[in-house]
Amino acid sequence: MLVSSLLTSVGINLGLCILFFMFYSILKKQPGNFEVYAPRLLAEGKSKRLSHFNLERLLPSPGWVRRAWQPSEEELLSSSGLDTVVFMRIFIFRLWIHFCSVYIVTVWVCYLLYYEYKYISLKRIAYFYSSKPQPHQFTILVHSIPVSAGSSVGDTVENFFTEYYPSTYLSNVVVRRTNRLRGLINDAKKLYKKLVRLQSEPNQPKLKRGCCFGLFGQKVDLVDQYEKKLEDLEENVRLEQSEVSLAGEDVRAAFVSFKSRYDAAVAFHLQQSIDPTQWVTEQAPEPHDVYWPFFSSSFMRRWISKLLVIVAFVLLTILFLIPVVIVQGLTNLNQLETWLPFLKSILTITVVSEVITGYLPSLILQLFLKTVPPIMEFFSSIQGYIALSDIEKSACNKVLWFTIWNVFFANVLSGSALYLINIILDPKNIPAKLAVAVPAQASFFIAYVVTSGWTGASSELFRVIPLICSLIRKPFVKSEDDDIEVPSIPYHREIPKILFFGLLGITYFFLAPLILPFLLVYLCLGYIIYRNQFLNVYAPKYETAGKFWPIVHNSMIFSLVLMHAIAIGIFTLKKLSIASYLIFPLPVLTLLFNEYCRKRFLPIFIAYSAESLIKRDRKDQNEPSMDEFFHELVTAYQDPALAPIRYSSNRDSLASPLISSEV
Amino acid sequence: MLVSSLLTSVGINLGLCILFFMFYSILKKQPGNFEVYAPRLLAEGKSKRLSHFNLERLLPSPGWVRRAWQPSEEELLSSSGLDTVVFMRIFIFRLWIHFCSVYIVTVWVCYLLYYEYKYISLKRIAYFYSSKPQPHQFTILVHSIPVSAGSSVGDTVENFFTEYYPSTYLSNVVVRRTNRLRGLINDAKKLYKKLVRLQSEPNQPKLKRGCCFGLFGQKVDLVDQYEKKLEDLEENVRLEQSEVSLAGEDVRAAFVSFKSRYDAAVAFHLQQSIDPTQWVTEQAPEPHDVYWPFFSSSFMRRWISKLLVIVAFVLLTILFLIPVVIVQGLTNLNQLETWLPFLKSILTITVVSEVITGYLPSLILQLFLKTVPPIMEFFSSIQGYIALSDIEKSACNKVLWFTIWNVFFANVLSGSALYLINIILDPKNIPAKLAVAVPAQASFFIAYVVTSGWTGASSELFRVIPLICSLIRKPFVKSEDDDIEVPSIPYHREIPKILFFGLLGITYFFLAPLILPFLLVYLCLGYIIYRNQFLNVYAPKYETAGKFWPIVHNSMIFSLVLMHAIAIGIFTLKKLSIASYLIFPLPVLTLLFNEYCRKRFLPIFIAYSAESLIKRDRKDQNEPSMDEFFHELVTAYQDPALAPIRYSSNRDSLASPLISSEV
Repeated sequence: MLVSSLLTSVGINLGLCILFFMFYSILKKQPGNFEVYAPRLLAEGKSKRLSHFNLERLLPSPGWVRRAWQPSEEELLSSSGLDTVVFMRIFIFRLWIHFCSVYIVTVWVCYLLYYEYKYISLKRIAYFYSSKPQPHQFTILVHSIPVSAGSSVGDTVENFFTEYYPSTYLSNVVVRRTNRLRGLINDAKKLYKKLVRLQSEPNQPKLKRGCCFGLFGQKVDLVDQYEKKLEDLEENVRLEQSEVSLAGEDVRAAFVSFKSRYDAAVAFHLQQSIDPTQWVTEQAPEPHDVYWPFFSSSFMRRWISKLLVIVAFVLLTILFLIPVVIVQGLTNLNQLETWLPFLKSILTITVVSEVITGYLPSLILQLFLKTVPPIMEFFSSIQGYIALSDIEKSACNKVLWFTIWNVFFANVLSGSALYLINIILDPKNIPAKLAVAVPAQASFFIAYVVTSGWTGASSELFRVIPLICSLIRKPFVKSEDDDIEVPSIPYHREIPKILFFGLLGITYFFLAPLILPFLLVYLCLGYIIYRNQFLNVYAPKYETAGKFWPIVHNSMIFSLVLMHAIAIGIFTLKKLSIASYLIFPLPVLTLLFNEYCRKRFLPIFIAYSAESLIKRDRKDQNEPSMDEFFHELVTAYQDPALAPIRYSSNRDSLASPLISSEV
Repeated sequence: MLVSSLLTSVGINLGLCILFFMFYSILKKQPGNFEVYAPRLLAEGKSKRLSHFNLERLLPSPGWVRRAWQPSEEELLSSSGLDTVVFMRIFIFRLWIHFCSVYIVTVWVCYLLYYEYKYISLKRIAYFYSSKPQPHQFTILVHSIPVSAGSSVGDTVENFFTEYYPSTYLSNVVVRRTNRLRGLINDAKKLYKKLVRLQSEPNQPKLKRGCCFGLFGQKVDLVDQYEKKLEDLEENVRLEQSEVSLAGEDVRAAFVSFKSRYDAAVAFHLQQSIDPTQWVTEQAPEPHDVYWPFFSSSFMRRWISKLLVIVAFVLLTILFLIPVVIVQGLTNLNQLETWLPFLKSILTITVVSEVITGYLPSLILQLFLKTVPPIMEFFSSIQGYIALSDIEKSACNKVLWFTIWNVFFANVLSGSALYLINIILDPKNIPAKLAVAVPAQASFFIAYVVTSGWTGASSELFRVIPLICSLIRKPFVKSEDDDIEVPSIPYHREIPKILFFGLLGITYFFLAPLILPFLLVYLCLGYIIYRNQFLNVYAPKYETAGKFWPIVHNSMIFSLVLMHAIAIGIFTLKKLSIASYLIFPLPVLTLLFNEYCRKRFLPIFIAYSAESLIKRDRKDQNEPSMDEFFHELVTAYQDPALAPIRYSSNRDSLASPLISSEV
């Protein structure tokens, strides 16, 4: 993680400081050390070298802090002269130290961001050079194909590309609407599983067979019945498949493959038709990354559904504040007592009140937040993306902004949606309002880090929900090694969480550094736990070659600018207007840095350069395996629902089904 | 123009209304028509059919308006019943009619915008199909070329493109820094002109030769002296040219030509290098459209100069308010009197005060505004654009926003820059503040339309400044047909002016429709005058094929949204909150419409589609003239400063010089 190295150094230094403090407060009390720690008092005769021994002398105590704090500036002036006062004035700018630290941390984070972005870009290019030829590198998706009456989509695509790309065009696969077919196949799959279970049960140990002896005859009937049903279903599927392939509802979209990566890139980059809303090209995703169900193809439809999703997202983000306000109410005991007076007696018990104020609010928030990633994923899926990875990336962004808005701003400003909107519409006063509200919520966010971060990471390790599911299912379902589905990590759930902790760390580091050790523990914990999970649990479902990184970068930049806004607010509140003016260039410079990174690195994450493409193509030119690859490429983007289905014939072999309709 | 058709219909209807009113007020007074216009009064005996004749009967008078206005609702109720009152209530929603008109005008303007955008897009494509092969269609500009030590830019470019585009690459021309050379050539040109003038004078009629007889001997000496000087200068130029060509300072930029339009487009669209800040490609401008002097080539330099120009633009826009505030002071007589008490006696004269309040303010504003387009052009020229057309386009945008901010907002809100910024930072209240301020300034803007629009268009016809220049120059310089420079229209001065009038028309049409006839006159005047000027005066300097249109479109959309904001403010002020809520969807829909247009049409104005390019290329394939064209293409992008110079050898023939260093 980006801030982890920073945090490590903070942690080590903090530890050293505490150690020094402790030693100091113990050693100071030993009369033998008076000449080291209090020579002045000794010389003035205010301190006696000899004193009777007691246990207190061996315990560290913070009394010296109080004693050092109490004298006023005048007393110090009279006792130690002006130079001392001047020297002490230096510390009055502790706020000034904050100011410097804001600058230093910003520069440091930006440096790290730049370095990381560069490193990941280079990794991405290196990955591309070393990757085997993959179908999606040679293919583009064309949608919004204009079809004239009387001709099919396939013919139109064939004509268009043979006319304009005669030397580079390879093949095309028209996308078809297969929702009904997919339903049938799912039914067949379920039936096949049931059948397999039933058939395998007679092979169980005698004891079990004996125990269900009375049901045995019935079972044989059931098997026959299911077999019959499955055969019928398969016949249906086959009929539907041929129907769809021959005269089915074509979606006006097709995967078009080319003879080289470069040619595919050219077709992707150039606007194909005179009308920019027709023959729209997109990079093809990996074949198993294609999201077949919601294949909307028309330009207008996609655009409108995108707009609707944005509206729905904004509405959800605002309406979600209702549970947040309830959570806020719970953290405030007095408010709860006035609302529900009968709880007064229970709330006076210390343990109960501590649980309620300390733990319950963030737990409730957690439970509500658990429902958000699936909702956002659903939103993204109807937005018109063609790849699962795109859907997750878009959902990741949505969840991130949702979390920042609903967890950070709503909790910090703890008001109704309308109040929040009023604040947004009054941008001049945002820094001042944040400066008042953000420090007040530090304890809540420490609790949040502990609940959401620590417990979240640990529960990730134990995989609570899959464990429960597996425990429930075990008695009923015989475990089959073939049937285990390796899960993929839900990036859209995990990335926003980590980024939100990054935001907390950056905004709170100079307001309430107490949050940093907790974050540090979380980040170390997370690092180890997720390494473990990646090695043992998760398998990647697709490969975007680092396309998630720009989200991380943007979120960090946002955190920095937010931190600057809070700093400006605080310095203004504390009447350090010079410092607040001096901070002003910082957000501007940070945004300029971001703009530079966008120009320098972002294009690498969108498409590969001509240089890389041509180099990679040349490397393949003399490979003998390329012929075979091109042969496979022609059918790589076949809808899995249209693949041949053969359950009934090979159900006895207990082999895994030939198709995997992963939806 | 877009609004002209709308304005025409408004004008015709207004004329008809006035005609009907006049006839009514005359005919009504004729006793013979009483049964038509006042049958009720006649029946009630309140009117006498017979009355003595007088002249007043034949003159139109608005007295009936007063008489129809005076009775209160109660009086009307008693005299005509409830139904009449209800009927009259319909008119109480005259504001409601405004509301409807806002909707109707928005829909109408959007329809026109869509239609125009489509029409111009089609024109643009048609122009491309019908155009002859032109060098800029086959060429791209590559800048930020990374050059390793020990190799030249030319070699690097040659190697890169022969490696990655072996079959399509044609040639390259490296850009060189020729500022000093250009200075020398200009000197030579001036000297040559002087020489030609001196030599031609002896050929004048005898009378003139006789009159300057005493100077004749001296003149021959002068001619010889100049000839010597010119030869020296030319020798210098030739030396410098060969020096620049051989070992000169290469700019890390080159014009790279390809064998077809499609190949050039491919190289333009694809990111060339792994590092997106190197080998940056741009579409090449027409050869005579290239802006040679400020040829900044590095990515960072361009970016920084762009940022600096933006900062300078913002500063200028804000500082410019000082003269505007003075202008505001002049429109306010009382303020002027308190400032300059000794003027009191003069200001009491009606004519003087009328001139000061009615005409002087906008004249002063005009004079200040005259300096803006050249300044903005200068800003754009140092921003790193390579084409004169790009510079003008960018300057056009700058002048437009400058005008909107400084003429519209500063005058409407008539406050200091800080006050304006405060308003911007408080977006919630913008509509309310505009609603108060905009209608109050209607008379100022009518005066502005008359001064800037009418007088401006007329002075454009007479070409005041060129006329004065020509009158001053005539006695000294002998007119030479070869030497006349045909001017090109300064688009960046004229387009923002017309668009600003469009903005005034759209924002004021429902507040102060009185402005519309003035605008209509301006638009008709402008239409005829500029047609005349294009036919007789201006010659196009370059051809962007309609790339200025998106600026017009954006400005119109901005005007519409501004109008909606003002409407919301006014309806809120007038307590018609339902109407103001009903207007809310309108700006949203307008912006969505704009977004759709951006997707539908804007790409056409940025680059041509693969379809058009390939079709156009195929058309040329069998043309025999293409070989010659490619031969010329190789040297088309040679810097004119590096072309051979031959003044001294052919000065006697009085032919125009071979080079035209148009800077």
